[in-house]
Amino acid sequence: MSRLRVEAFSLSLDGFGAGPAQTLENPLGVGGEALHGWARPTRTFRRMFEGKDGTTGVDDRFAVRSFEGVGAWILGRNMFGPIRGEWPDESWRGWWGEEPPYHVPVFVLTHHARRDLPMKGGTTFHFVTGGIQEALARAREAAGPRDVRIGGGASTIRQYLQAGLVDSMHLAFSPVLLGSGESLLSGLDLLRLGFRVTEHVPGENATHVVLTRG
Amino acid sequence: MSRLRVEAFSLSLDGFGAGPAQTLENPLGVGGEALHGWARPTRTFRRMFEGKDGTTGVDDRFAVRSFEGVGAWILGRNMFGPIRGEWPDESWRGWWGEEPPYHVPVFVLTHHARRDLPMKGGTTFHFVTGGIQEALARAREAAGPRDVRIGGGASTIRQYLQAGLVDSMHLAFSPVLLGSGESLLSGLDLLRLGFRVTEHVPGENATHVVLTRG
Repeated sequence: MSRLRVEAFSLSLDGFGAGPAQTLENPLGVGGEALHGWARPTRTFRRMFEGKDGTTGVDDRFAVRSFEGVGAWILGRNMFGPIRGEWPDESWRGWWGEEPPYHVPVFVLTHHARRDLPMKGGTTFHFVTGGIQEALARAREAAGPRDVRIGGGASTIRQYLQAGLVDSMHLAFSPVLLGSGESLLSGLDLLRLGFRVTEHVPGENATHVVLTRG
Repeated sequence: MSRLRVEAFSLSLDGFGAGPAQTLENPLGVGGEALHGWARPTRTFRRMFEGKDGTTGVDDRFAVRSFEGVGAWILGRNMFGPIRGEWPDESWRGWWGEEPPYHVPVFVLTHHARRDLPMKGGTTFHFVTGGIQEALARAREAAGPRDVRIGGGASTIRQYLQAGLVDSMHLAFSPVLLGSGESLLSGLDLLRLGFRVTEHVPGENATHVVLTRG
């Protein structure tokens, strides 16, 4: 069966996946942008977001891998946008412009129904109101033999971890402190969930850790 | 003034400074020994504990530094030994044999008074019942112009952090998961305490991070 993967999820040294006080201007919370300092200069991200070339070292190798073999994504609603509660209309179309970097179906967890939103380049956003199991079932069906990637944020990943559904996690520990914010692992017992460290690789701007279950 | 330093304190990737269920046989708790996998092969530790030579790379450089300029230590009682409550007698003399690796005065936090315990090689254990401030005052006096090092464990370091007294922390992130145990940073806001990341160096068997206040 295809695997459920967390990829390229950035953590601060004190274990936060986003800073406090997330807003439209600061979607990753105060200080949260620094978490992605390792990804930004890579060729993978520069090509994707700026149409330019970038670095091709260890950090980029993990960035490349994070997209390989992915047939569908699952996102928490806050990762799709800053709107809370009912959708006022259909004008919010994600953070990424008209051609999002997914190029496969993306399942957005929300309590509020919304019509499918097809974008350029193969991405379609589907809004799932039935919870994490339903989102995973639909994502698996869409992905076929390929894997499903959970994009985040921290609370979405935590729900899938607690349910014992995540097969592997690539975490990028960035050399920053956030002090407060959304903790990824607090209160979770990764050993009891069956994870062990299968890779631990220093990159140019982060330490890459792969945790694998089973 | 001399500084208060945490040095060579090992953390798991999930943020634990010791595993669960500490006992005489397992002073670092279940799985906790693995935290120190980076230190054990170094020349510093091999010479200290086995009288043999060892590695001299990045991990050893941080091990060497951890002892430099240290004029006194502070230890939590559990780091001194497994006995809880009143001292039944004076037979417990620490984990380290007759010549402990400190070679300076060591102040042990305890609720239970005990006579000073001079050991071979310059180490004297002093048992402090007046709390962390008293221990620090006495350690500073003993250290003179040199620094005071907090050996641990996690709860002792947390108390000094919360009191705003720690000047720098060298943490060694080992590539292991502990799942549960003693968290070092949970609930502490290191940014608000004034820390920033001043070094981030991949070692042979751990990632070394130095956090400095002010």
